[in-house]
Amino acid sequence: MGKYLPKAIVHSDEIDRLLAVEPGWTKKKSGVEKRHYAKSETASDMGAEAVKKALQNADTTLDEIDAIICTSGTMEQPIPCTASLIHKKLAPARPIPAFDINSTCLSFVTGFDLISHAVANGTYKKVVIVASEIASVGLNREQKESYVLFGDAAAACVVETADEETTGILAAKMETYSEGAHLTEIRGGGTKYHPNFHHNEQDFLFDMDGQKVFRMSSKVINPFVDELLQEADLSIKDLKAVVPHQASGMAMRLLQKKLGIPSSQFINVIENYGNTIAASIPLALCDAIESGKIQRGDHVMLLGTSAGLSLGGMIFVY
Amino acid sequence: MGKYLPKAIVHSDEIDRLLAVEPGWTKKKSGVEKRHYAKSETASDMGAEAVKKALQNADTTLDEIDAIICTSGTMEQPIPCTASLIHKKLAPARPIPAFDINSTCLSFVTGFDLISHAVANGTYKKVVIVASEIASVGLNREQKESYVLFGDAAAACVVETADEETTGILAAKMETYSEGAHLTEIRGGGTKYHPNFHHNEQDFLFDMDGQKVFRMSSKVINPFVDELLQEADLSIKDLKAVVPHQASGMAMRLLQKKLGIPSSQFINVIENYGNTIAASIPLALCDAIESGKIQRGDHVMLLGTSAGLSLGGMIFVY
Repeated sequence: MGKYLPKAIVHSDEIDRLLAVEPGWTKKKSGVEKRHYAKSETASDMGAEAVKKALQNADTTLDEIDAIICTSGTMEQPIPCTASLIHKKLAPARPIPAFDINSTCLSFVTGFDLISHAVANGTYKKVVIVASEIASVGLNREQKESYVLFGDAAAACVVETADEETTGILAAKMETYSEGAHLTEIRGGGTKYHPNFHHNEQDFLFDMDGQKVFRMSSKVINPFVDELLQEADLSIKDLKAVVPHQASGMAMRLLQKKLGIPSSQFINVIENYGNTIAASIPLALCDAIESGKIQRGDHVMLLGTSAGLSLGGMIFVY
Repeated sequence: MGKYLPKAIVHSDEIDRLLAVEPGWTKKKSGVEKRHYAKSETASDMGAEAVKKALQNADTTLDEIDAIICTSGTMEQPIPCTASLIHKKLAPARPIPAFDINSTCLSFVTGFDLISHAVANGTYKKVVIVASEIASVGLNREQKESYVLFGDAAAACVVETADEETTGILAAKMETYSEGAHLTEIRGGGTKYHPNFHHNEQDFLFDMDGQKVFRMSSKVINPFVDELLQEADLSIKDLKAVVPHQASGMAMRLLQKKLGIPSSQFINVIENYGNTIAASIPLALCDAIESGKIQRGDHVMLLGTSAGLSLGGMIFVY
């Protein structure tokens, strides 16, 4: 795996001043100490750097890669797909396929699961999945609770079949509860509200009803995780690590408590990055691998919620 | 399969008047007699209707569907993914997964190929793939050559494993030539040019250098198709039908000539719909099935180019 963090770092006390809230409010509300904002980088710049790092860490080169899959919740341009723009920065001379998979914050998990079937049956030998997110451009200062949560980052992962069957995906699951489709949204910028004809600036900014999202997902998360564990024939104690979507400090604390996961098993890096949308899970996974918290042979669960409203999870042996 | 066409029909002579060109220019340039524009429908409205029709034609119901995959080149909103919005209109009470796959005009082919691996190995028994496109909102009157080409439409397809192995995918292939990434684009509306900070209206509209796209794809299309046929162990004459991306009347004529495909095998419906982005291939396929041109057991090739610049193709037995 590999990651890229934009050069500009924004500390929570700077955001306190920007939002004119009392000192400490941003940190307390979000659980975030600092986050990175892309001020000089594009999403494809960041994605390409994360891929390079992942290739290096996987001891491979782009010449061995059969496809570039971008799994971001945001896009650099409406056309073409972000994977093509990353492809251009990495491999302009090698016509390997490039396409996007999107389920907002769960895009990486959805993409990893989906592409694994094509890798398992030999269509692709080795692929790279990359999530590159610039959340900072679409934050809404009027909605302080969500403004303080987000950061920008990219994370990438090389996926191939294992030589021996010592590693692999044991279970994967996704559920979409679309009665919550409008609880987390950016309404404007697609075909519904085109920028040239729609001029309500609020509609082009991130809008979330965090309370309702939390209530909806709370009702279904326990059976979801139980089924995921059952599919893998494991229990929570068999997992070396649970890597949750780094949604917010509070959401993560509540999730941890609700599922009864000891802190030693729960990967929480939100303090350093904020919520980086679909980059959040692979970024936390990357850090846990780099720090040695996750080692070869360990059982790992990825778990998160996303706009949709969707739940997604995966259990694999690293 | 099923399709949905927006209620409003726009004939080429209306576009002649709108663009102040001589009568007949629009038809001559595009090969399009009429196209549909979504004036009262959203992309998710259209997608949901196409899915309903596909379910009906497949003699099944949503209760048997395991996932909704949206394969559009445009999106209704930046967040959540369009599949969630279609899910909400179809199955708000059934939490089947909903996510998007995007490679612009080739999204349907990419999604069909990718999801087939997950269907083949039993992860999903039966899924629905839907492309729903509203091109009309992003057309640029200053760029008459591309303005005249596009229309709006949705098309959907139910995919499941065959009871006996009489039908199935024989070959699939995609190549991305990203030196052409900026030949077809909408630059604004993503994280690079956010609508609140970027006010050049042209950047939010479709921009294509059709000549260059054609020159680039012409160089690589023949070996691409040869490899696809080789993978399926077939030659052009073995195909009952080639269903190309309905890019433009001229592009299709040139493609047909370059590949030596008899008119009887070449599905061309652009006259009725224009270029409907990723809905274009499934819409033409749907029509060819409905009219009896393609019947069970026939060998069919899907083939197209997309922004990226990508080539994509698939050969299957219907």
